[in-house]
Amino acid sequence: MEIKGLRNIEPYVAGIQPKVDNMIKLNTNENAYGPSPAVLAALAAFDGNGLRRYSSLEQADLRQALAEQHGLEAGQFVIGNGSDDILSMAFLAFFQTETPVLFPDLTYGFYKVWAQLYCVPYEEIPLRDDFSWRVTDYQRECGGIILTNPNAPTGRFQSLDDIEAVLKANPQVVVIVDEAYVNFGGQSALCLLDSYPNLFITRTFSKDASLAGLRVGYGIGSKQLISVIQAVRNAINPYNVDAISEALALAAVKDWSYYQQACRTIMETRDWFASELRELGFELLPSATNFLLVKPSLVEAQKLFAHLEKEKIYVRYFPSQERIKDWLRISIGRQDEMESVLASIKECCNEQTNTTSGPA
Amino acid sequence: MEIKGLRNIEPYVAGIQPKVDNMIKLNTNENAYGPSPAVLAALAAFDGNGLRRYSSLEQADLRQALAEQHGLEAGQFVIGNGSDDILSMAFLAFFQTETPVLFPDLTYGFYKVWAQLYCVPYEEIPLRDDFSWRVTDYQRECGGIILTNPNAPTGRFQSLDDIEAVLKANPQVVVIVDEAYVNFGGQSALCLLDSYPNLFITRTFSKDASLAGLRVGYGIGSKQLISVIQAVRNAINPYNVDAISEALALAAVKDWSYYQQACRTIMETRDWFASELRELGFELLPSATNFLLVKPSLVEAQKLFAHLEKEKIYVRYFPSQERIKDWLRISIGRQDEMESVLASIKECCNEQTNTTSGPA
Repeated sequence: MEIKGLRNIEPYVAGIQPKVDNMIKLNTNENAYGPSPAVLAALAAFDGNGLRRYSSLEQADLRQALAEQHGLEAGQFVIGNGSDDILSMAFLAFFQTETPVLFPDLTYGFYKVWAQLYCVPYEEIPLRDDFSWRVTDYQRECGGIILTNPNAPTGRFQSLDDIEAVLKANPQVVVIVDEAYVNFGGQSALCLLDSYPNLFITRTFSKDASLAGLRVGYGIGSKQLISVIQAVRNAINPYNVDAISEALALAAVKDWSYYQQACRTIMETRDWFASELRELGFELLPSATNFLLVKPSLVEAQKLFAHLEKEKIYVRYFPSQERIKDWLRISIGRQDEMESVLASIKECCNEQTNTTSGPA
Repeated sequence: MEIKGLRNIEPYVAGIQPKVDNMIKLNTNENAYGPSPAVLAALAAFDGNGLRRYSSLEQADLRQALAEQHGLEAGQFVIGNGSDDILSMAFLAFFQTETPVLFPDLTYGFYKVWAQLYCVPYEEIPLRDDFSWRVTDYQRECGGIILTNPNAPTGRFQSLDDIEAVLKANPQVVVIVDEAYVNFGGQSALCLLDSYPNLFITRTFSKDASLAGLRVGYGIGSKQLISVIQAVRNAINPYNVDAISEALALAAVKDWSYYQQACRTIMETRDWFASELRELGFELLPSATNFLLVKPSLVEAQKLFAHLEKEKIYVRYFPSQERIKDWLRISIGRQDEMESVLASIKECCNEQTNTTSGPA
């Protein structure tokens, strides 16, 4: 007998997580460097016997540390199981609307998935040809707005003036700014929080804080918005942050200079790698993230992707996304890794040139 | 200006998590004993450097270990951030219905919260006066059924014959059996999986496996149901299980005899404690869980609750739930803890008797 009531959805497809020795994994924008010594020390010091007890409901210590880091109040933070958890809850918490929520046609692929899952009406607004968004597109009646800044998978940062213009035009709905990559060269909208109670910012420990495997993210907003999303959190899974994750995230916040240094190093490697690819004639977007969106010259994206994969170098290729089907998204690894990647790219381009020109 | 689109919900209220020295915490049904030595060893051996990488998308090792433990296939399991995560997703995955989903009026308080959050129509069906449920109440047209067995907060286990009668009468909808407490004296519905593709069972590592702080739970069902809920999982938060949680849960499954022994000890303490309370004239339900629902004699529930709290003994009191407002739910701690609790209860009853009878 057929079972009724089953959900039929098209899920988000995450980058693969290959387990291959000596691979160079540049497909999910993980941090090139490991967690800080203080985080490793917190892990070593964690008393496993305490795990029989539930984790905290409030994450008071972590929220306080974040408040001090950002010069805000603990009541302006909500903690989740990765920023995916925070963003998913934000759709439930803030977008109870019959008017469409707006986001770019090229941005984090999950926004569309959550909108569909929670039956939130939405409209995808095409980015310009240079993959920037037009402020006026977001100055109209809508049910809410969500922008990633810097954007993914493009890497582009758009100015705070543009963000503020959107906030100012939409005081009656929530504007979410997803700042997963902000510490790789962007500027945070945190300074706008005081003026715009409709602003909700999300952050993750998966990128700059090198704790992707730990699953911690957070949201920042006015106390009004935080109380709404905390109620949703308590209605879904109030113990969404486990005890070890909370302890290690706290250690990371308290050792933040380590991560600032790692981010600087990654940005230096990124800028070097970008200039090398430009030399090869690749088209690149300016990046304020730990990845580059690049359009290869001489060789097709698909071919370069396959060549790299054969050499156990994993990058992201989006064949089903029309606007970037000729592009590759390459996370920035360590300098030595990127030198290997560059060599492999050159090899692929040379093979192609030789094949194309053929024997004399 | 007023912000539109904000959600207004009444969240589930979890038991408090006091941090008090020398307390006896019996209010959230945590395990009396700590995680197994193998789990502590897995924690000590975990390489924190690996946390820069995302956790696994598939939890292949943990699902395989669970499959071997239960004599099933890995494809029949879905892993979540606690069984709350699994159950919350199950409401989204299985209850797309306009006909009400049925559950008892006295059961896990979250079912109502999730139904409201996800706009699933529901009907709460009163338990009998003895807090058992009537099979015929669940043999009618409906959008799905969810039963906790053994039930919480009553502690009552209801026979697999009753569960099977409900499954048989409702082949066209999903029947969820929440088995959070099954290893404290219940019988699992796992043996019915082969015959009923509409059966979905949930389990947690928070109770029998003593890992409440780690947040791991799982669901078991036919491959059809698992593929539906996996799609929902991938549409909400595909990395919902962090790397440390997966490693430690795996260690727990592989060291299961330790937990079986701990459960037996807890059941012995429970049965001793129950007989002592019966001696005092308390009314008790038969319990197949690691807690007892008790109705004090001589002294009111509220008064006993306050007396215990003053002595740093935390139990659960439900003043706003009409049917059990005169009852207390007491988790079963270690034998020595329960001896202290019994002494404190006797003290409270004696005080009450002296006050009531007054001077001769």
